[in-house]
Amino acid sequence: MTDARKLHDNAIIVDGLQTCQWSRSIFEEMRAGGLTTVNVSSLLWENFREGIGYVSEWKRFLRENDDIIRPVRTVADIHAAKAEGKTGIIIGWQNTSPLEDKLDYVEIFKDLGVGIMQLTYNTQNYSGAGYLEEVDSGLTGFGREVLAEMNRVGVLCDLSHVGDKTSADVIAYSKKPVCISHILPRALRDVKRNKPDELFVACAEKGGLIGVSLFAPGLAAGNDATVEDYLDAMSYVIDLVGEDHVGIGTDFSLDRPRPGPWLLWANKDKGTARTLTEFGSVKISKPKGIQRMTEMPNLTARMLARGWGEELVLKLLGRNWLRVLDAAWTPMA
Amino acid sequence: MTDARKLHDNAIIVDGLQTCQWSRSIFEEMRAGGLTTVNVSSLLWENFREGIGYVSEWKRFLRENDDIIRPVRTVADIHAAKAEGKTGIIIGWQNTSPLEDKLDYVEIFKDLGVGIMQLTYNTQNYSGAGYLEEVDSGLTGFGREVLAEMNRVGVLCDLSHVGDKTSADVIAYSKKPVCISHILPRALRDVKRNKPDELFVACAEKGGLIGVSLFAPGLAAGNDATVEDYLDAMSYVIDLVGEDHVGIGTDFSLDRPRPGPWLLWANKDKGTARTLTEFGSVKISKPKGIQRMTEMPNLTARMLARGWGEELVLKLLGRNWLRVLDAAWTPMA
Repeated sequence: MTDARKLHDNAIIVDGLQTCQWSRSIFEEMRAGGLTTVNVSSLLWENFREGIGYVSEWKRFLRENDDIIRPVRTVADIHAAKAEGKTGIIIGWQNTSPLEDKLDYVEIFKDLGVGIMQLTYNTQNYSGAGYLEEVDSGLTGFGREVLAEMNRVGVLCDLSHVGDKTSADVIAYSKKPVCISHILPRALRDVKRNKPDELFVACAEKGGLIGVSLFAPGLAAGNDATVEDYLDAMSYVIDLVGEDHVGIGTDFSLDRPRPGPWLLWANKDKGTARTLTEFGSVKISKPKGIQRMTEMPNLTARMLARGWGEELVLKLLGRNWLRVLDAAWTPMA
Repeated sequence: MTDARKLHDNAIIVDGLQTCQWSRSIFEEMRAGGLTTVNVSSLLWENFREGIGYVSEWKRFLRENDDIIRPVRTVADIHAAKAEGKTGIIIGWQNTSPLEDKLDYVEIFKDLGVGIMQLTYNTQNYSGAGYLEEVDSGLTGFGREVLAEMNRVGVLCDLSHVGDKTSADVIAYSKKPVCISHILPRALRDVKRNKPDELFVACAEKGGLIGVSLFAPGLAAGNDATVEDYLDAMSYVIDLVGEDHVGIGTDFSLDRPRPGPWLLWANKDKGTARTLTEFGSVKISKPKGIQRMTEMPNLTARMLARGWGEELVLKLLGRNWLRVLDAAWTPMA
């Protein structure tokens, strides 16, 4: 029988998205949980200068904590993080708002280390509609240009909070695999934030990845969910798209008080307009058995307890992410 | 028989939109043409700081040319302009791009003297779709908030370059009359830039105004059009919506070389992305008989020559604009 702890310790483990209140203690918890690399993506509504500020803030974090975290711009950097016993940091965005009206800024931010950009967060922006916009007209003309730039310079496009029609258009237009970094199946709970089977299938057919999320309101059991409910959701997606297109996107938002100023800001359109959802103020638990990063080894153990093979578990923990990141980050000829 | 020149000289004449290369000689031509007030609206893609710059530029123009132009913030200012023998200047925008992601900026710019804002220019922005966007999903959630702010603080919303669906939504949601400042009927020439009858009717039913434009590509005769073709278009709209809802919006873009840097910029999405139309580089004539502001008296003469009554001509030249501006600019209780 596979030693779960040993497999966990040896695995490359990639977390497709977190929005924690970043600090030394969060980085220590990444290490304690055995995370090899995390997409740090708490940028939601920032404009150009604030997007630059986000990069600068991460440069400081990386400098001041370089004993336990390191920057990741390539898949080789993720392997280096594993070898060094550090957690690799992918600077990511949940909105292309920092691009403002400038296509050229895609490459500027890629140069500065931004490796993953969600096209839009919840509402309409210049490129497309978020899942909370009443009507989704799909990828805009400007959005096609932004996506082409992301493809060209090597930024992975994320569709988690993007509307269904815009998501389908991105998958159709993209010349590279894309990801849905933190998501749950609408087939298991019919809420707008979840996505329908056909988008998972289309994303996988494009070579992309579905990162299954720990966001309790997207699971049938809600706040009563356990790690087993989470693995049921993962199992559902694997059955749908195959084991090469599924990974983890925890959506951990640790040390952010709820209600609290950051979450209230997050839940307003553009940070200051109308309130979009109740998520900023209601209690949301992660599934029992996987409530903090320190419980990540338990996730691996529960996967193995289901009889999932080592190879499958390694793919889910990180290998699939490595393939998709490599494909997205390799510049186009 | 009415003396056309005398009627023209005594009338309050409002031009719903111009985008000239502003200069002393343009302001002198406004005087020579007998224009009482002009919506100066060459702002197309500017961001917040550039929008502030546009206001500052106009403060300089108004200061340095205060013998012939004066600011207009109220309808009383238009009457004052007439009494003083000056041309009143309404600072206007063809895009809400300077608001960026901040609702609060509507009131900021109203305080700074911006009296008319077109919701979007040609493509999708945070508030809605332009007429060149492939799919128009209508007024966005944020757009509703922007419109409510415009209603509240007293900014007239313009729909000329806005998509059909977004335009219909704005007319439905607005608590104040709106305008289509420079437009031609699609019924007379089926091009996207023109608008369908039902939008004119809806705009009029809301108490709004349709400013008939001199943009030759929107007339059946194109560059061969004459002032009579223009008046045929105006006549068509009057028959459709009644004589209280029609005015002039010349779209004069004098002293802008075509092709030239400003028009090439104007015709790219957001000024720097893909080229949207050929209008930046092809020759476009105004209708013969009304090719410059100095020919405005001829427009009045041709109206009278059609047998149009004095009362009707005065409404078309400016009275209808006065009513709509007053309604839009009066703060809501």
